[in-house]
Amino acid sequence: MTPDHDHLVKIVRDSMHDVFSTMLNNIELKQVDAYVDGGAPPTGDGILAFVGLAGSWAGTGSVACSAAFACKMSSQFLMTEYQSVDEDVLDAVAEVTNMIIGNVKTRLEEDLGPMGLSIPTVIWGRNFTSRTVGSYEWSVVPFMAGKERIEVQIFLAPRKDNAKPKPGAAVHDTVSI
Amino acid sequence: MTPDHDHLVKIVRDSMHDVFSTMLNNIELKQVDAYVDGGAPPTGDGILAFVGLAGSWAGTGSVACSAAFACKMSSQFLMTEYQSVDEDVLDAVAEVTNMIIGNVKTRLEEDLGPMGLSIPTVIWGRNFTSRTVGSYEWSVVPFMAGKERIEVQIFLAPRKDNAKPKPGAAVHDTVSI
Repeated sequence: MTPDHDHLVKIVRDSMHDVFSTMLNNIELKQVDAYVDGGAPPTGDGILAFVGLAGSWAGTGSVACSAAFACKMSSQFLMTEYQSVDEDVLDAVAEVTNMIIGNVKTRLEEDLGPMGLSIPTVIWGRNFTSRTVGSYEWSVVPFMAGKERIEVQIFLAPRKDNAKPKPGAAVHDTVSI
Repeated sequence: MTPDHDHLVKIVRDSMHDVFSTMLNNIELKQVDAYVDGGAPPTGDGILAFVGLAGSWAGTGSVACSAAFACKMSSQFLMTEYQSVDEDVLDAVAEVTNMIIGNVKTRLEEDLGPMGLSIPTVIWGRNFTSRTVGSYEWSVVPFMAGKERIEVQIFLAPRKDNAKPKPGAAVHDTVSI
């Protein structure tokens, strides 16, 4: 079964609920309307963490939030007060992202077969541009925690070429775009 | 076999050579001393593209360069002149990264078994911080193309937990750190 937008949204919401209720106990999340985004590259401001998914389907899952919310989340997660973004906060956001997208992956595997998860990377800055190659349609699933917005984005595409290329050739692993 | 630093460096250099000689015909690369970096998160300035690797070993491979070199590389790759970074340039850098790391992956699979590649993501900005969770040792493999520096970074770690977790549980996919 191809994971359509509505299915992905449900899986992301369930995963967020699981992670926030077990690991980030006191942060209440409100669901906001999800949508599909296939447009221009967003300009980031704040924290963006993502982790790759790879198998017969491949893609990326990301979590974006403000620096303030990242500190709040990290304070809950690590049970220490964080007022500003440091390495601990970046690591905590990466770990939370790993859990959320890992949870999504496990649910997706029921339909798509085994997938691997890469190591999460966190970007922190102002006015940076993030872009994923190709014209993918991302499922954007926002949540509100008080006045703070946290967004989970995910897309998946079936891999075009599952044949194993020969070492020594200029390999071009591609997905259907 | 565990891919040690020297082995990774050799594989990265071979892959770079293959991709630059077949796809980026006129850009000559000079090898620079490679090193292991396990230190503080680097502050980025320019273009950083990366793609996840996932299998019984997981990791990330990245390519970093200046905006000017990204334009030069894209001009060669797409056979069109690019003077400034736009969506085409970001896509071209992502594609080249996909080829380089895909090539590395194919060579690694001889020792580590099948791995998947996620979809590349490109970050472009000034003064952004990029961090990968945990205290990994990255193999940093720089090259010079004239006065421009291009850096390939890669790390891999064996996954701790290959057991399939139950859906519904707060999943925590981790690697040995």
